[in-house]
Amino acid sequence: MEIIGLVAGFCTTASFVPQVVRTWRTRSVADISLRMYLLLCLGVSLWLVYGALVGSVAVLLANSVTLVLAASVLGMKLAFGRKKPAPPPRR
Amino acid sequence: MEIIGLVAGFCTTASFVPQVVRTWRTRSVADISLRMYLLLCLGVSLWLVYGALVGSVAVLLANSVTLVLAASVLGMKLAFGRKKPAPPPRR
Repeated sequence: MEIIGLVAGFCTTASFVPQVVRTWRTRSVADISLRMYLLLCLGVSLWLVYGALVGSVAVLLANSVTLVLAASVLGMKLAFGRKKPAPPPRR
Repeated sequence: MEIIGLVAGFCTTASFVPQVVRTWRTRSVADISLRMYLLLCLGVSLWLVYGALVGSVAVLLANSVTLVLAASVLGMKLAFGRKKPAPPPRR
């Protein structure tokens, strides 16, 4: 039964890898929600606190990897989101 | 201690709401990774199976809401991703 939980955790954590790769390659972040990744990083950080408090290695492991991935997307959203082309001058 | 887990689960699940709202409003999905949401929906579905097997209402509740939200983004990615402007005819 626990194997299903392990595979589930692997999938939900690994799911952020293709987003990190795509965003790194395209440098395009317009369609990505800043609020989603802010809230996600907060939630995953709280999961880490919870995992430490209850002493769950599985919760700590899965969420530390997820935090690195989610924080990467958040960082790229902040970094690449700024670089907008300057609007043409009005005359 | 459990309150931290509950708040963590609320944050990670609710984090998908702003992405659903943004994608619904903009209809723009180019920067969203299809593979991420495919893998995420698979993983969250497996969490539901796991929750049912171990009889955890918390796991079932959090993941059923997350599945609805993640599947919404996946559905919009598939639906809106197709509508590309036709390329100009070659002569």
